[in-house]
Amino acid sequence: MPKTLPSRADYRFFLEIPTRWMDNDVYRHVNNVTYYSWFDTIVARFLLGSGAIDMRASPVVGVVVETMCRYHAPVAFPETVTAGLRVERLGNTSIRYGIAIFREQEEIASAEGHFVHVYVDRATLMRPTPLPEALRQAAAALVVDLTDGGRPGAD
Amino acid sequence: MPKTLPSRADYRFFLEIPTRWMDNDVYRHVNNVTYYSWFDTIVARFLLGSGAIDMRASPVVGVVVETMCRYHAPVAFPETVTAGLRVERLGNTSIRYGIAIFREQEEIASAEGHFVHVYVDRATLMRPTPLPEALRQAAAALVVDLTDGGRPGAD
Amino acid sequence: MPKTLPSRADYRFFLEIPTRWMDNDVYRHVNNVTYYSWFDTIVARFLLGSGAIDMRASPVVGVVVETMCRYHAPVAFPETVTAGLRVERLGNTSIRYGIAIFREQEEIASAEGHFVHVYVDRATLMRPTPLPEALRQAAAALVVDLTDGGRPGAD
Amino acid sequence: MPKTLPSRADYRFFLEIPTRWMDNDVYRHVNNVTYYSWFDTIVARFLLGSGAIDMRASPVVGVVVETMCRYHAPVAFPETVTAGLRVERLGNTSIRYGIAIFREQEEIASAEGHFVHVYVDRATLMRPTPLPEALRQAAAALVVDLTDGGRPGAD
Repeated sequence: MPKTLPSRADYRFFLEIPTRWMDNDVYRHVNNVTYYSWFDTIVARFLLGSGAIDMRASPVVGVVVETMCRYHAPVAFPETVTAGLRVERLGNTSIRYGIAIFREQEEIASAEGHFVHVYVDRATLMRPTPLPEALRQAAAALVVDLTDGGRPGAD
Repeated sequence: MPKTLPSRADYRFFLEIPTRWMDNDVYRHVNNVTYYSWFDTIVARFLLGSGAIDMRASPVVGVVVETMCRYHAPVAFPETVTAGLRVERLGNTSIRYGIAIFREQEEIASAEGHFVHVYVDRATLMRPTPLPEALRQAAAALVVDLTDGGRPGAD
Repeated sequence: MPKTLPSRADYRFFLEIPTRWMDNDVYRHVNNVTYYSWFDTIVARFLLGSGAIDMRASPVVGVVVETMCRYHAPVAFPETVTAGLRVERLGNTSIRYGIAIFREQEEIASAEGHFVHVYVDRATLMRPTPLPEALRQAAAALVVDLTDGGRPGAD
Repeated sequence: MPKTLPSRADYRFFLEIPTRWMDNDVYRHVNNVTYYSWFDTIVARFLLGSGAIDMRASPVVGVVVETMCRYHAPVAFPETVTAGLRVERLGNTSIRYGIAIFREQEEIASAEGHFVHVYVDRATLMRPTPLPEALRQAAAALVVDLTDGGRPGAD
């Protein structure tokens, strides 16, 4: 467990996501699975908004190789959450995003995790391929340095 | 099929719903199933916002007995849609809602359908029970008369 | 509402579908939305199993234009349901499937509805196109005549 | 990344889970989010099957505090996958489950991850509470020792 929970200031790109009725499970809180639908939504919105990736036509495709989430406090429909995004590692063929979920008016994350994309060529969906330069530049703007006693991720 | 498609003016309560990445299916459009998650989200938001129903404690519960949707034009992530809600039949123990989905900037519905709640007592979830008066009043404000050559629903 | 509820004998193709934990909502029953994920799963399994449609390469694609479900009795995780499929109308460019959901050991449907595919060319996803002959033959084997005082669908 | 991928022999409890049409995303593989719906389904099936927890009435409730998944190879509808479950850490108030997803006929996991439950009292959903003895015994039967050069999880 991280010593301190991340706050909004630790992220660089934000997206409001309203909860849906179905997101709640029998315990009247958003089910653990749903958080990951928010994670891949904010990553996709960042990618589309950056203009760096055309999901229909780009010669490379991001394949998800690892995701993780820690749940610190519950969230429930009908809340609107804010997802925060940062880049925790910008590799040659991969990007590790850090993502946090904030309740309205709250500075401290209710949940946080990561999402790792490896870029592969579209034809095989297998062969790792260097990040396109436009994507590298867009992602670089979200990089947060986690080494200075910061809040490390899971590994 | 209705002769004319419904427009925003045919609905009384609106909610913006951003699509999520997962909503798209292999044909790159929002899957037919997802529309129903929007349907029960707008109904729940109306109910909660009206103050007429406390989902945790009300002695009566709305049980869904029928839903229907007609899909006129595709919608795709990352669009934000607007859901429109109206009441098409306000019964003694039931409410039939009409719901339409509008793309941004569009007046004509991309999809429309209905959603029927029967109210039952919370203990058994079986016995139909008259609508609470506060709910009846809130729902009455959304009633749209469909008999004057309007746009009838499915049955 | 139908006068009598459909039974297993009214359907021609069956698929067992285990519920998932997330399928339940706050009322501890499967949410109304989830039934539609079962509907399009049994249609897709029928199409793939028939060999009549190659979802990746066929020149025509089935686009969903209408779905409907009536919920007669609740279902809950961890039950495994059986979905039943039949063809209620085999048109020139469209197929209307009837679908019912049966609980284990039960002959009478807990839910029933329909699902209408219009076939369009893959390039535009717009222009209705005659059903491929192999698909027509596969679907013909599931046709059930509903005219003899049977159990009509919604419209 | 683990040096070697886990195999079926590394797990103790198994569940077949058919994919659903909606599980596939635009890349024609099961979306990363869906794996977590399989994770909480196998955990819930184990708990219900063990008789150790009555989800409706037990005085304690398992709250999910962390989940993680690594995706090694794609899975696609209409496959049926097999989920494998083990206990990686049996604490005083928490259980860490290891879960893997196997394609049909394959011995090596296509995906693997973990899922951590902390038990809390039902009233507050907050206060950690010792595992009920029946649950501890059921979980003990699934414990796999990971210390002898095994395949450690993420942390």
